Amino acid sequence: MTIRTVVWGENIHEHTNAVVGGLYPQGMHTTIADALSRHPDISASTATLQEPEHGLSQARLDETDVLLWWGHKDHGAVSDAVVERVAKRVYEGMGLIVLHSGHFAKVFKRLMGTPCALKWREAGERERIWTVNPGHPIAAGIPEQFVLENEEMYGEFFSVPEPLETVFISWFAGGEVFRSGLTWRRGAGNIFYFRPGHETYPTYHNPTIQQVLINAVRWAHNPQAALKNVEDAPNVPVEQALEPITERGPKLHAAGEAGYR
Amino acid sequence: MTIRTVVWGENIHEHTNAVVGGLYPQGMHTTIADALSRHPDISASTATLQEPEHGLSQARLDETDVLLWWGHKDHGAVSDAVVERVAKRVYEGMGLIVLHSGHFAKVFKRLMGTPCALKWREAGERERIWTVNPGHPIAAGIPEQFVLENEEMYGEFFSVPEPLETVFISWFAGGEVFRSGLTWRRGAGNIFYFRPGHETYPTYHNPTIQQVLINAVRWAHNPQAALKNVEDAPNVPVEQALEPITERGPKLHAAGEAGYR
Amino acid sequence: MTIRTVVWGENIHEHTNAVVGGLYPQGMHTTIADALSRHPDISASTATLQEPEHGLSQARLDETDVLLWWGHKDHGAVSDAVVERVAKRVYEGMGLIVLHSGHFAKVFKRLMGTPCALKWREAGERERIWTVNPGHPIAAGIPEQFVLENEEMYGEFFSVPEPLETVFISWFAGGEVFRSGLTWRRGAGNIFYFRPGHETYPTYHNPTIQQVLINAVRWAHNPQAALKNVEDAPNVPVEQALEPITERGPKLHAAGEAGYR
Amino acid sequence: MTIRTVVWGENIHEHTNAVVGGLYPQGMHTTIADALSRHPDISASTATLQEPEHGLSQARLDETDVLLWWGHKDHGAVSDAVVERVAKRVYEGMGLIVLHSGHFAKVFKRLMGTPCALKWREAGERERIWTVNPGHPIAAGIPEQFVLENEEMYGEFFSVPEPLETVFISWFAGGEVFRSGLTWRRGAGNIFYFRPGHETYPTYHNPTIQQVLINAVRWAHNPQAALKNVEDAPNVPVEQALEPITERGPKLHAAGEAGYR
Repeated sequence: MTIRTVVWGENIHEHTNAVVGGLYPQGMHTTIADALSRHPDISASTATLQEPEHGLSQARLDETDVLLWWGHKDHGAVSDAVVERVAKRVYEGMGLIVLHSGHFAKVFKRLMGTPCALKWREAGERERIWTVNPGHPIAAGIPEQFVLENEEMYGEFFSVPEPLETVFISWFAGGEVFRSGLTWRRGAGNIFYFRPGHETYPTYHNPTIQQVLINAVRWAHNPQAALKNVEDAPNVPVEQALEPITERGPKLHAAGEAGYR
Repeated sequence: MTIRTVVWGENIHEHTNAVVGGLYPQGMHTTIADALSRHPDISASTATLQEPEHGLSQARLDETDVLLWWGHKDHGAVSDAVVERVAKRVYEGMGLIVLHSGHFAKVFKRLMGTPCALKWREAGERERIWTVNPGHPIAAGIPEQFVLENEEMYGEFFSVPEPLETVFISWFAGGEVFRSGLTWRRGAGNIFYFRPGHETYPTYHNPTIQQVLINAVRWAHNPQAALKNVEDAPNVPVEQALEPITERGPKLHAAGEAGYR
Repeated sequence: MTIRTVVWGENIHEHTNAVVGGLYPQGMHTTIADALSRHPDISASTATLQEPEHGLSQARLDETDVLLWWGHKDHGAVSDAVVERVAKRVYEGMGLIVLHSGHFAKVFKRLMGTPCALKWREAGERERIWTVNPGHPIAAGIPEQFVLENEEMYGEFFSVPEPLETVFISWFAGGEVFRSGLTWRRGAGNIFYFRPGHETYPTYHNPTIQQVLINAVRWAHNPQAALKNVEDAPNVPVEQALEPITERGPKLHAAGEAGYR
Repeated sequence: MTIRTVVWGENIHEHTNAVVGGLYPQGMHTTIADALSRHPDISASTATLQEPEHGLSQARLDETDVLLWWGHKDHGAVSDAVVERVAKRVYEGMGLIVLHSGHFAKVFKRLMGTPCALKWREAGERERIWTVNPGHPIAAGIPEQFVLENEEMYGEFFSVPEPLETVFISWFAGGEVFRSGLTWRRGAGNIFYFRPGHETYPTYHNPTIQQVLINAVRWAHNPQAALKNVEDAPNVPVEQALEPITERGPKLHAAGEAGYR
């Protein structure tokens, strides 16, 4: 079974900034998708902000197992309808991997329920990423620590909900730390946030970073059928109760009436 | 130090349904606030949907330590601006206790990031509430199990994020179970969901239910100063780095420029 | 890659109680192992209390990916050396699935760090098992609820640590609830506790129960190489520090000296 | 209500190492207890390895709300009986604060169920402690980061169970990070591990460190009555079932017989 992934890229700085364009001439999304596609258990395509529906039609999302999301310059340009559509697919079981500046993506804030804010500094400083959960599937084959010689700093407090598990923590030359690899489940969907990936550095060409993303895709993949009823609030009529009960006391709702929302 | 609480009530069925009006002639919110106010460490007032800004002006929220929320019939009537205002106060440290049908309140869904859906049946059946975390502050003085002879059934799957801790689980005569007491933290704010409280039954007159609410208010109270910066994403200039670093490599942002959102 | 499982059975009541012997003539462990072995991705063998080293030599554990554990009558007969050996393999990444009365197995208490106590009643009453985490891999293909017409009751408070995730909750005819499917990670090892399985009932012949066990084996399997250093406390000499530092201030330890334990 | 704390000190290096003795002439435990005692809501006494029963008789533990534990040189000298006694009191609701090299204390390993190992380097290097959960009670009044100019380095992987919440993360000059403030609950007892505190440095004289310990004592304090039954496994006879049930099917246990352990 191939894991069907879509790498979503905002696709702006690649065209407006010479450094970014030089590092990622086909776009960061393409670099990431190419890295994923080298593995026979993963098929990867791309989608961008500029496409109709940002490349994320319902039909396409319905055939997507794991979505990776990179955005930075124009989070506000993503339509709310697409945000809701992606969130619903996550509840159904689509994995979501949020990359770097995607911490402020509408869909990440929507799924976390928190501001997802942090400190930052763009100084090309050294980042050391430490594995603090070496048995986690996302850490498979990743050394106890590895270095990105030039990265943007992200610092705490990172205002996200306490994760299920913390997988990576970053050390920065300027003195900060950051929880760089965090997992959550929302509905049937697995979510992983991974910090590195500032567009002016060659981070997504780094083989260790690529390995983390491959691991994350495999971890986030939920092979179960889509959990279609996660937003339903079904009434269970008395006569269909699993154990025999008799209706008692006053009621608000007439038989068969839907609940309030 | 008195814990300043506001009990928010939708305040509809008390006026449109004779049973509810008979049980709670001053409104469910008033019954709850009166129960809280009998404790000298808690001061309680009420707010309702019908008041200007639903009784939740910024000034009032700024002086609220813990907000309790009961709504059912008309969640959609709550203005989005008030929802955002409440969510922001939670991030700052205001406690939030969501009651029963409040599982579908806009602000709860907003903070959870999930649908918060569940099964239901209005048959006045027996509910047994089991304490599965007896050392938790919210369980102080609560027996290992207690009975509500008539309650609405709520059944799993309850589509909320995995909680920090599960405190109560309900057994229903009709065969269902439900995670009835769950905790989360969002920003600096403590959140507790507590299942019982259907308006056609005298649940909020029950002393054990009242004790849970009192415990929950004390637990949710965060006496620290409001965490005002939870939505900020400050830049840390290179020259203010904690450890001396030298700027290297290409940059997107000019000095002093704000980050993207 | 085949997942190498060992099903450990205490193997007492099958020989001393006619009912148990009738239900499981080859032992409960054999019934479980046979159910697992019908799946081509799983190989299953058995081990019992009566074998030398309880069938769990170091060599055998080193070739075991997932260990299932059922014990009841004579937990105390399991040697402490084997308990430590199993715990160490869990830290290294071996999965552990603890069944029913195994809640009091030495190795489970050892890994949880808590008493793992609970209430019980042997009345052949109805158990309804509810899936409260339908997107979890262990719930794959499991209905929202299923029935065991005759089971022993286990009731809360179940004194285990708060789990990573709660997957199943049981409803009992006599009025109790129980967190029946719980997950933890210890070192690199995944641990799942699954409640059903009293020996006087045909629980392990139930296809839904078998499916849960198969799911649990797949979930618990950690394909990474054994994490051999999880008990090490290595000194990092100053001259091997990742970032250049100068030794300062007083020291307790001479260069090359091991730390205290 | 005064929180009755006991600060347990191994009390060896203060007498065998001139530096340690100079920094803490009355022992580290006394310095810590003095800092706690300056707050009217806390009473603090000390206990040491050398006292009978290490100063931790059952009677004394029964009157202790929160125990702080510092050990390093001779963890093995702590008697197993005292370890079990302390663990049982934690299950009952006594708070436990484990300091620095106490990560290898028998009672901490006992309660965690894991090796609790880590990397280390004794070079007097700079440690920056970051608050990653600013709304947590243990972080009350603690700045977003603070510095210990000379500390021992502890590095990941720290082999403990995933915590309930991560409160502090340390940055070290030599390039490592460490989860320095972690919380768990075991039974009714709150547990906090706090990393700093190498005996050759004046860490426990630092006012911010003292404030963390005061906060931790208040957070760990469980004012409920001792949860005495956490190790019990009571049988619930059929005739005492909460809901009427009829005994069915075969049984192992005669009426009134205790369960197996």
